[in-house]
Amino acid sequence: MSSTSQATRMANAIRVLAIDAVQQANSGHPGMPMGMAEIAVALWHRHLKHNPTNPYWPDRDRFVLSNGHGSMLLYALLHLTGYDNLPIEELKRFRQLHSKTPGHPEVGITSGVETTTGPLGQGLANAVGMALAEALLAQEFNHDEIKIVDHYTYAFVGDGCLMEGISHEACSLAGTLKLAKLIVLYDDNGISIDGNVEHWFADNTPQRFEAYGWHVIRQVDGHDVEAVDTAIAAAKKAGKPTLICCRTVIGKGAPTKAGGHDVHGAPLGAVEIAATRIALDWPFEPFAIPAEVYAAWGARDRGAAAEANWRERFDAYRAKYPQQALEFMRRINGELPANWPEATRAFIAGTYAKAETIATRKASQQTIDGLAAILPELLGGSADLTGSNLTNWKAAIPVRATEHGVQFGHHINYGVREFGMSAVLNGIALHGGYRPFGGTFLTFSDYSRNALRVAALMKARSIFVFTHDSIGLGEDGPTHQPVEHLASLRLIPQLDVWRAADTVETAVAWVHAIERQGPSCLVFSRQNLPFIARSDAQIENIAKGGYVLRDWNEEIVAHKLILLATGSEVELALAAIEPLARVGIAARIVSMPATTVFDRQTADWREFVLPKGVMRMAIEAGVSDYWRKYVGLEGDVIGLDTFGESAPAATLFEHFGFTVENIVKKARALLS
Amino acid sequence: MSSTSQATRMANAIRVLAIDAVQQANSGHPGMPMGMAEIAVALWHRHLKHNPTNPYWPDRDRFVLSNGHGSMLLYALLHLTGYDNLPIEELKRFRQLHSKTPGHPEVGITSGVETTTGPLGQGLANAVGMALAEALLAQEFNHDEIKIVDHYTYAFVGDGCLMEGISHEACSLAGTLKLAKLIVLYDDNGISIDGNVEHWFADNTPQRFEAYGWHVIRQVDGHDVEAVDTAIAAAKKAGKPTLICCRTVIGKGAPTKAGGHDVHGAPLGAVEIAATRIALDWPFEPFAIPAEVYAAWGARDRGAAAEANWRERFDAYRAKYPQQALEFMRRINGELPANWPEATRAFIAGTYAKAETIATRKASQQTIDGLAAILPELLGGSADLTGSNLTNWKAAIPVRATEHGVQFGHHINYGVREFGMSAVLNGIALHGGYRPFGGTFLTFSDYSRNALRVAALMKARSIFVFTHDSIGLGEDGPTHQPVEHLASLRLIPQLDVWRAADTVETAVAWVHAIERQGPSCLVFSRQNLPFIARSDAQIENIAKGGYVLRDWNEEIVAHKLILLATGSEVELALAAIEPLARVGIAARIVSMPATTVFDRQTADWREFVLPKGVMRMAIEAGVSDYWRKYVGLEGDVIGLDTFGESAPAATLFEHFGFTVENIVKKARALLS
Repeated sequence: MSSTSQATRMANAIRVLAIDAVQQANSGHPGMPMGMAEIAVALWHRHLKHNPTNPYWPDRDRFVLSNGHGSMLLYALLHLTGYDNLPIEELKRFRQLHSKTPGHPEVGITSGVETTTGPLGQGLANAVGMALAEALLAQEFNHDEIKIVDHYTYAFVGDGCLMEGISHEACSLAGTLKLAKLIVLYDDNGISIDGNVEHWFADNTPQRFEAYGWHVIRQVDGHDVEAVDTAIAAAKKAGKPTLICCRTVIGKGAPTKAGGHDVHGAPLGAVEIAATRIALDWPFEPFAIPAEVYAAWGARDRGAAAEANWRERFDAYRAKYPQQALEFMRRINGELPANWPEATRAFIAGTYAKAETIATRKASQQTIDGLAAILPELLGGSADLTGSNLTNWKAAIPVRATEHGVQFGHHINYGVREFGMSAVLNGIALHGGYRPFGGTFLTFSDYSRNALRVAALMKARSIFVFTHDSIGLGEDGPTHQPVEHLASLRLIPQLDVWRAADTVETAVAWVHAIERQGPSCLVFSRQNLPFIARSDAQIENIAKGGYVLRDWNEEIVAHKLILLATGSEVELALAAIEPLARVGIAARIVSMPATTVFDRQTADWREFVLPKGVMRMAIEAGVSDYWRKYVGLEGDVIGLDTFGESAPAATLFEHFGFTVENIVKKARALLS
Repeated sequence: MSSTSQATRMANAIRVLAIDAVQQANSGHPGMPMGMAEIAVALWHRHLKHNPTNPYWPDRDRFVLSNGHGSMLLYALLHLTGYDNLPIEELKRFRQLHSKTPGHPEVGITSGVETTTGPLGQGLANAVGMALAEALLAQEFNHDEIKIVDHYTYAFVGDGCLMEGISHEACSLAGTLKLAKLIVLYDDNGISIDGNVEHWFADNTPQRFEAYGWHVIRQVDGHDVEAVDTAIAAAKKAGKPTLICCRTVIGKGAPTKAGGHDVHGAPLGAVEIAATRIALDWPFEPFAIPAEVYAAWGARDRGAAAEANWRERFDAYRAKYPQQALEFMRRINGELPANWPEATRAFIAGTYAKAETIATRKASQQTIDGLAAILPELLGGSADLTGSNLTNWKAAIPVRATEHGVQFGHHINYGVREFGMSAVLNGIALHGGYRPFGGTFLTFSDYSRNALRVAALMKARSIFVFTHDSIGLGEDGPTHQPVEHLASLRLIPQLDVWRAADTVETAVAWVHAIERQGPSCLVFSRQNLPFIARSDAQIENIAKGGYVLRDWNEEIVAHKLILLATGSEVELALAAIEPLARVGIAARIVSMPATTVFDRQTADWREFVLPKGVMRMAIEAGVSDYWRKYVGLEGDVIGLDTFGESAPAATLFEHFGFTVENIVKKARALLS
């Protein structure tokens, strides 16, 4: 084979694997893998630094398939380059239950998949996060003579990704921060599901990206491996994030369907597949790849050599900087420092000892400040609400760009880009080396909701800080007052949601979030909340997500009512215990900072906290429906099932019935 | 006063009202009104066609304050130009409970407020919707010699709006569709909450908007009324949507605080306010505006004249085109056609008679097709999933741009822009003349979630079509399978959520959504669902949101179990009724297509459908927590509390326990 024909064969191997797998599954998207096959050859064969025999080698290049519906492109690449967990049998099981080849790429299912994509635009934002993590980590750990962090981040994107608003948020930020090692390859095929994009997407995309401060390489023939190769080489030297605009034909190779939207998301059918095989001069059976094509693709030796080269460097690094090398490995592996248990226990005890009455957002800032001293990997930020979310801390240097690129820091001003921020956080978390968190108002968790969901699906270790957690924010009014958000976030599987009642619950929530192998939402008040006295055991029990804070009687059997509350309403429940007693209602107060965590406790613990047969009432300044899972039909909820109002916070709590008087009144009615 | 000094005084009146109201409320955002005061004078005094004595005159220009935190700018303008419901007393009650001056502008609270803003970027997208509605309506109703639809849409935006991803989605669409009567004034003050935007927002915004096909007017001095006036005049002739970039100083007029981010969102304080009064040569008491300034601003006479001029034209139009004039007023007033009740009843009966087993998304398309014949105001669309959402219909002409601008049509290809689409829908609905709807997959309701929330808050008559409503979408896998979405949408106050079980429920859901004075989500299946036989009374009862579909016994007292189900799970519940009977469990089957609607029914109806004392089990392929409000702690839920999987739909329903066998097993356990 000549070099060109070899490249063509390598691309055609992707094409036939994609069409055969989609045909076998009778479901999937052949158009993109066929259209991007040569681009994939140029990147994966000539540039991508990866090691199929060790997919998680720290300094590999990161590759993100942001147009994730083209998953067969990635599966074909991983198979052809020799990833162990994608033998041909798995490609035959494309889109079948518990295969390694689900409909869209899922991190944690398939080795070599760096992030879960499919919801368009988010992969691109993840890639921005990965490139940012690389740039910062390099400055923390590299020395002039030895670089142990030095890789590129590549993303494939389609028209859909670039229409999504998140592409604006993420790419504007990447341009501002001058993330020079981010290289994006745009599959400019002029087609989206509805047809020719000109009717709904007439942007001058190169001009748009130049407006973001990107380097743009225009009009690359996406079916010319050499041209794409040259463009990637140029991008590496650009000193800015680069968009390579590749003109392609969707479904390239399918004689009658190429170039049309029918090839986007449906099997080609047996007739077209047969014709495609002839057109591609590919006489082999489905899923049969000639040995020479495997050999041409084979990346195992090159990958192993690349990693060995890095390991050699890392050994030299370790010899010269043993402490830093240890620290690097700890951080890349996502391990906590050895002193974490004692240090955090001491911090929580110290927080308790201070007995402060402050807003939990302020308590959060103090916690961050305390944890930052133990955890240099904390990488904070806010979507332009730093002074409100209080996500910064004393020693935090802001991340800024200079003419030489992004400069190391600990806190990122994400701008007013909630969704972009959240997906960037996910990218940072997936890259490794940092524990990222970012803040906005709870109500604007809506803007980033799907990134929270994908974080949960991926079990990404992102931390989402949401302040201004109720009508307690006051005058800004209903657009800014979350009502349904606490409940609706709790409904996302695998996502933890903490709403802290005071400084101590705040500290515990942070510690829990840091320790967790998955994402957490930390929800804090704008307004001051009083310190709550607790026993040592109670402090321990906060981590269980729900625990007994006060019992009027020593014997629970004597209790007539359990009051469950979270956050700012815990104060109210506590204040009601005596008035309730005066009207003959002995109550237990349960604080439930994290229902999602409480639900994972043992049945014994849950029964201990919420013994069956005792009437229950929940109090939370949010929608009531969610609480029926704890209070049942016979219990009651003091909640807020309408939108809020614009008024001072104290007026609103009174107006909406969050008062001791109302608790007593409702409790009496409930028990009468 | 010279003309210039008059303009300055008019601007200063805005400034002092803003700072005094914020000071009095001890809360709010003075910086933006102070910075945009001259821009406001140029637009509102010299261009804006509006009538303070009739804020809802159909052909008024639409004005959107997308940077809604600067609400005092709008309240000051409405007050100074003579809107009846904003006397000075209301400005003194800024941000107080039930005032007409809430923290952010709210449509329905304050006359002259065209849309609710505050969540950044959405106002801009609303404005795109308004401009689109105007352009289409003009083509439907204008004649060459008489134009009854002929107004501009103006929006004020800040850096925050332009950082948000939705600004990309909406403005890219506006450029593609060549919405020439959309004029956006950008408050380019270089400041956002975190400080100087250069560190997080380095876009070349003019270049970006040119890439969208907009006309951009650069470098306008935003404190020069004449310059802004000239720019607006030029924008009107541009033949494209126009962005006017106004350089401004945030908090202009405050001697020490102007130009800094401290002035953005906090009262100036008494000292700075006193100094500002001196600097502005404004010796008057708080809230005291000299009569000559009111006179200079006064827009009541001009507004009344403008409307009278239009009414004259409209009378001529009515004389010449009486039917069209009637139809125009019906549509602008949002009234249904006279034959609506009979026509829809006949349509539902016809749907029933066809007894079809089809996907409810297909049933939705058939319903749209049927309703479109009655309702010419239907304006459909999809976020690049037209062939999947089935939002188009036979006679629907796609909305397309030509070199002359957007051409009339019934269906909009929104591109892959879920959030932008949803906020554009809101803008269209607020403009009037159309009943807009738009589709995407249910899982991507996440992307648009805050626009759904704002629609609900505004009671905008937007209809959101969400197809592929569960694991029933199959192979696309967990990123595309909604699990928590049904429940979490139901938690948004004032939003109706319908999930149809067959063709008939689909038709009723559509009719209900069209009739409703507020937004609805219509949720449909990808896969076929069987036709369900019903009595006439049952068909009537669908509109109650929950109703009895089958009783095993005639006497409910004999029932041991109520099965509640929605959508595709209704079939399963029905299939279980006999097997349950065989094991001695007489069951009632309740279909609950719209829990939000059911909850608004009388207590009698709810008790009739769900009599107390009968054990309940809910079945829905989504998170179970929500259903506790109906089944209590003692009942059970067959739900899905994890993410889905990638596999064929039938495999997944089986895998996750959505089988008759599992229902029987769980029911037996429940009742044992």
